[in-house]
Amino acid sequence: MGMIGGGPKAFIGSIHRQATRLTGQIELVAGAFSGDPDKSVKTGMELGLSKERIYLTYEEMVEKEAELPPSERIDFVAITTPNHLHFPMAKAFLEAGFNVMCEKPMTITVDEALRLRDIVIKSGSVFGLMHNYSGYPMVKLARDIIKDTEFGAVRKVIVHYQQDWLSQPIEADGQKQALWRTDPAQSGPTGSMGDIGTHAENLIEYLTGLTITQVCADVATFLPNRRLDDDGNCLLRFDNGAKGVLHESQIAVGEENNLAIWVYGENMGIEWHQETPNYLNVKVKNEPEQIWKRGNAYVGEKSPAADRATRLPSGHPEGFIEAFANVYANFSDTILAKINNNIPDELMLDFPNVEDGLRGMRFIEAVVKSSKSNKKWIAMNH
Amino acid sequence: MGMIGGGPKAFIGSIHRQATRLTGQIELVAGAFSGDPDKSVKTGMELGLSKERIYLTYEEMVEKEAELPPSERIDFVAITTPNHLHFPMAKAFLEAGFNVMCEKPMTITVDEALRLRDIVIKSGSVFGLMHNYSGYPMVKLARDIIKDTEFGAVRKVIVHYQQDWLSQPIEADGQKQALWRTDPAQSGPTGSMGDIGTHAENLIEYLTGLTITQVCADVATFLPNRRLDDDGNCLLRFDNGAKGVLHESQIAVGEENNLAIWVYGENMGIEWHQETPNYLNVKVKNEPEQIWKRGNAYVGEKSPAADRATRLPSGHPEGFIEAFANVYANFSDTILAKINNNIPDELMLDFPNVEDGLRGMRFIEAVVKSSKSNKKWIAMNH
Amino acid sequence: MGMIGGGPKAFIGSIHRQATRLTGQIELVAGAFSGDPDKSVKTGMELGLSKERIYLTYEEMVEKEAELPPSERIDFVAITTPNHLHFPMAKAFLEAGFNVMCEKPMTITVDEALRLRDIVIKSGSVFGLMHNYSGYPMVKLARDIIKDTEFGAVRKVIVHYQQDWLSQPIEADGQKQALWRTDPAQSGPTGSMGDIGTHAENLIEYLTGLTITQVCADVATFLPNRRLDDDGNCLLRFDNGAKGVLHESQIAVGEENNLAIWVYGENMGIEWHQETPNYLNVKVKNEPEQIWKRGNAYVGEKSPAADRATRLPSGHPEGFIEAFANVYANFSDTILAKINNNIPDELMLDFPNVEDGLRGMRFIEAVVKSSKSNKKWIAMNH
Amino acid sequence: MGMIGGGPKAFIGSIHRQATRLTGQIELVAGAFSGDPDKSVKTGMELGLSKERIYLTYEEMVEKEAELPPSERIDFVAITTPNHLHFPMAKAFLEAGFNVMCEKPMTITVDEALRLRDIVIKSGSVFGLMHNYSGYPMVKLARDIIKDTEFGAVRKVIVHYQQDWLSQPIEADGQKQALWRTDPAQSGPTGSMGDIGTHAENLIEYLTGLTITQVCADVATFLPNRRLDDDGNCLLRFDNGAKGVLHESQIAVGEENNLAIWVYGENMGIEWHQETPNYLNVKVKNEPEQIWKRGNAYVGEKSPAADRATRLPSGHPEGFIEAFANVYANFSDTILAKINNNIPDELMLDFPNVEDGLRGMRFIEAVVKSSKSNKKWIAMNH
Repeated sequence: MGMIGGGPKAFIGSIHRQATRLTGQIELVAGAFSGDPDKSVKTGMELGLSKERIYLTYEEMVEKEAELPPSERIDFVAITTPNHLHFPMAKAFLEAGFNVMCEKPMTITVDEALRLRDIVIKSGSVFGLMHNYSGYPMVKLARDIIKDTEFGAVRKVIVHYQQDWLSQPIEADGQKQALWRTDPAQSGPTGSMGDIGTHAENLIEYLTGLTITQVCADVATFLPNRRLDDDGNCLLRFDNGAKGVLHESQIAVGEENNLAIWVYGENMGIEWHQETPNYLNVKVKNEPEQIWKRGNAYVGEKSPAADRATRLPSGHPEGFIEAFANVYANFSDTILAKINNNIPDELMLDFPNVEDGLRGMRFIEAVVKSSKSNKKWIAMNH
Repeated sequence: MGMIGGGPKAFIGSIHRQATRLTGQIELVAGAFSGDPDKSVKTGMELGLSKERIYLTYEEMVEKEAELPPSERIDFVAITTPNHLHFPMAKAFLEAGFNVMCEKPMTITVDEALRLRDIVIKSGSVFGLMHNYSGYPMVKLARDIIKDTEFGAVRKVIVHYQQDWLSQPIEADGQKQALWRTDPAQSGPTGSMGDIGTHAENLIEYLTGLTITQVCADVATFLPNRRLDDDGNCLLRFDNGAKGVLHESQIAVGEENNLAIWVYGENMGIEWHQETPNYLNVKVKNEPEQIWKRGNAYVGEKSPAADRATRLPSGHPEGFIEAFANVYANFSDTILAKINNNIPDELMLDFPNVEDGLRGMRFIEAVVKSSKSNKKWIAMNH
Repeated sequence: MGMIGGGPKAFIGSIHRQATRLTGQIELVAGAFSGDPDKSVKTGMELGLSKERIYLTYEEMVEKEAELPPSERIDFVAITTPNHLHFPMAKAFLEAGFNVMCEKPMTITVDEALRLRDIVIKSGSVFGLMHNYSGYPMVKLARDIIKDTEFGAVRKVIVHYQQDWLSQPIEADGQKQALWRTDPAQSGPTGSMGDIGTHAENLIEYLTGLTITQVCADVATFLPNRRLDDDGNCLLRFDNGAKGVLHESQIAVGEENNLAIWVYGENMGIEWHQETPNYLNVKVKNEPEQIWKRGNAYVGEKSPAADRATRLPSGHPEGFIEAFANVYANFSDTILAKINNNIPDELMLDFPNVEDGLRGMRFIEAVVKSSKSNKKWIAMNH
Repeated sequence: MGMIGGGPKAFIGSIHRQATRLTGQIELVAGAFSGDPDKSVKTGMELGLSKERIYLTYEEMVEKEAELPPSERIDFVAITTPNHLHFPMAKAFLEAGFNVMCEKPMTITVDEALRLRDIVIKSGSVFGLMHNYSGYPMVKLARDIIKDTEFGAVRKVIVHYQQDWLSQPIEADGQKQALWRTDPAQSGPTGSMGDIGTHAENLIEYLTGLTITQVCADVATFLPNRRLDDDGNCLLRFDNGAKGVLHESQIAVGEENNLAIWVYGENMGIEWHQETPNYLNVKVKNEPEQIWKRGNAYVGEKSPAADRATRLPSGHPEGFIEAFANVYANFSDTILAKINNNIPDELMLDFPNVEDGLRGMRFIEAVVKSSKSNKKWIAMNH
């Protein structure tokens, strides 16, 4: 594995490293960790990399790694930079024959996303998108419960993603994470809606198997002088007639990483909260509410995907890194299968991919368009 | 006190009776409990009323009660019938000089609401509207926390009200409550939005002191052949620039009476859940989350209204009937003050009134209009 | 109904009054509310009683009420005074032919309790003891689940009752409640163990149907100069071989009225918390945890007693007063049956009685003896 | 790092491996994974070890590793076998100059524990004991809050550890974990009390800084034919006069790994639940209850140890493996300091050691003695 981004003060790069270590099957051997060469070298040295595989630019990394014998070169690269770099970097590595794990949102325009999809298809490489919340076992369980006929058709979906880290103008103080996320040049056309709204959108489509067809959005920028939205509310309509609400905020004081989802079908409902991820509440008409707990045999029986994503017995809480690592485990098992000329099974392929990335960009596109429009419904193209 | 409605199989009439008993200052002495004379008499007898004060129609009740000497006649009437009867009944009693406590929604049209407001003003009588959720001590506390300057301006409001009792077509089986609530002739232009959406709307304006200026609504009727909406989602805009989401449902399988509200200001946030009403979560930027618990001295110090609405020490849970009784206690204290030619103080006047009822009808009007419109925002007039 | 105690600053008298009002079938018509005649009269007047039925002493009350024609005299008396007065008062009223509802603990010695039992039996009157927690519907449900064969034999019982109101030496400041509860002359041989430990003991035996056979107790008095225990821990053994722990405290800072119980059987377990009383968690080996919610049809089907004790639909929280009123409803229905020469059915008789009071006193006796002993186990006689 | 134990079907060995990987500073290079040579080799190969460092016995491992040049040999060994092997293995490695991380309970007798302490002292090696629950950040925070003067002297401690995995006689079906844990020859004189009771005991002394001086225990074996206790209740007394309760069970149906602790001081209290480990409830007299959440600045300010043990921002849940890894991080940093001839700082030394292991064995000794005794209190020697 190689990494781009993840230098000093980066947030997500460190999580990628911890998650991949946890899998026990991925080793970091190369990287271009920062736009600043000194920082890149410093980070690489701290991580114990060979000096010759610490690169100063991603272009150098593509070139040099591609020159190595296949058995020595990296099997994939993880792109953990600000959004505007995802596309050129992913493109370069894919076209050089590398597999890619990319942070979300996938690109900064739908056009880039469409082009990237073509590149992925043409390359035959494995492309993963880090919608890490789909890696939680109880999310996979929820999906498998919802697709059961006894759940009945989905009627209503509520998802919220509440944070407060941008409730003060910290970008004005130079906070690195806030700086690029509120900068249209690096972040793209949306702030919070792209940063966390796309996670929510992905969670909905992953869990329900439904397709959002129309959105009606109202994004807001509450902090004066902020250049991108820090809050947004959105009505949703789905292909099967279901309706929904997605709302997110980065100015919801006191909220940390409060992603939660409720799905109601004709006969049952589910409720899941990311901050207590080991539990899934299952509601059945005229029966006591059920709390399904990760790691039990009854979970594995209903959801082989949840079972596969489980490391510890019940009552031994798993968290964010474990879910992250689950995405990596499926991604790297798929690469391994490919290396060994095996066909990856369905459970391996259960990680977000380029199609999910395109959906996210279409969602952003529709939300931006809707927020500026006097028309009530904006189609989210398929 | 007299009562109209609340006969056999009625739901809310019994709650009015329990709540008034609990206050210790209200006695039921007259009533017209059903459109069916036999049922009215039967209910009245069971409740131990004198036979001569069990009436067969509300018109008879108005007439006969008005003929009684002032010291004997009822001090007020509680109207607990289906919605379409609220207006004529309230009108009749007000015009005969009686005080009125009315179930929500106040009327079935904005026009009726406007007329009723005029009648109330002209009559000089006390008019209360049973938005019982404003009677909870922790709701009053939340209001008083929000209006503190340290809370900062409100930026975002989320409210949901989820139920499941209409998730099956029970009106087809003749269930009395479902029958009239899904009948436009008795319920008015909305189903769930009028029944529970107006509670949510009232809670928002009561808690925040803000005024909703625009709505963008999407109501739905998920059950085939149902005649009114059983679900609805709504984006909100407020007079101070805040934004919000209100969503409600009566088909959310597994939800019982799940009304909850989150309000986020510049520096703080609050969260309250009706099903565990003795707690209020208070969020302060960069501090541990706080759980304020009903009945403590620190609650009373921040909110005299919460203190006044508290019967039991902390840890001794209060519930729905107690909140209901709190509305009645303020309402009847106000009547008492009037009887004694005193000026009711501000704490007594803290109960929903005809203006709140008009707001509820304007909300319904705007939601109905929005749901049928292709325009994104519909004004909610003041 | 008549009341003894419950004057100004009393806590529990007011709750008795609110609870009886809520039942809709009990009216307060007489009382001796305080040892101070002025206070008794003042309270009685405030409560709207006829002056001639406000008494200055309980002896006067017994005498005068007994002189009234049967149709006018009180049907029962509620004794809400400090503990040391329970016995003489209950004795006087029972011997004069009145039914009695008595606060707990029933007496201050086992000897008194045994004598009171004899008096009750001899009198043929109805005697109720206010262990109000047994009035909660979910407690009744728990009892009915535990007695099902599928629960399996009970193996382990944990109960705690944590409060903090005596964590500071408030009796030194003259706080009325604290004064008498820390005074051996008024409270009896125990402080917190008698005040709340007996509630916990009663809850255990009520819920499980088991009999405590042995205790091993360690009570403590943490506040200097306090004269009775303010904390206690206790190991328990039961007649069927089950084991348990009961611990209580009135110095557990931050706890309000935190009574909770866990019962584990061979195949199932239950968990209930008084502060969120509308829920009962039910645990079944290898199945998702279940949250049973008050007011649902499935609750009533499993437990007719819970159904009978339910006033409101699910999701509309009931609380402490409602549970209190449930004890009164069964007690007064039993009296009514007796008045009408009917045999009260089993559901009516579901309220704590003189035998429960005796168990409480035996528990106190065993705990006191154990705390002073070097012997590990002290028998709790039957 | 080398490992003993952790072969196929082992539970804890895999967790040691995941936790050490997560630290990013520990690599597994040698091991003797099973008493069965084939299994040891198989496990070693699967883990990617060089064949020459997969050993068939621990004696072989000690001998061969000691022969390697210091720069190549393992820096420490992790002992993850059944209890009866801890002592001889730890002794062998310590005497050969290796550092040791040992599973709990440390030995099977107090005598072995005392001898091991001497060996550790004499060796000058670093010895860690895997009481992993002390690795949770919020546990460290709780400790630092309790030691503040504003907390006041600790008065009462409650800890429970409830599981259900032995509620059925699974050892009779040959379940590997159950087999050795219910076998006195491998497990020592206690079952559940040694397995989980010692975790609870360690948590108490770690959190409070107090020393248990006396115990009064009642252990039980509920399953017929089981050879060791599967449940136990215990009263505690502390050196400062505080009192407590420790109860644990492996037959508490529906409980998974429900370790929780409540500590009450003169002015404050804390409450922590292992199954939702990212939260610490802090109770202050007459103030709202506080929920401290892992990863916030206010946590780090109060507790540098919690800060050091934190990997992710607030709202991104950490779990069991992370806590486990925190123990390893401190342990290995201490070794590193030693290797580099530095003096490890206090934060590094914050991991359970041989003294903690001795305390655990003394606890087991006292509990066993107490359970067989008619005397109420048994001293737990220091």
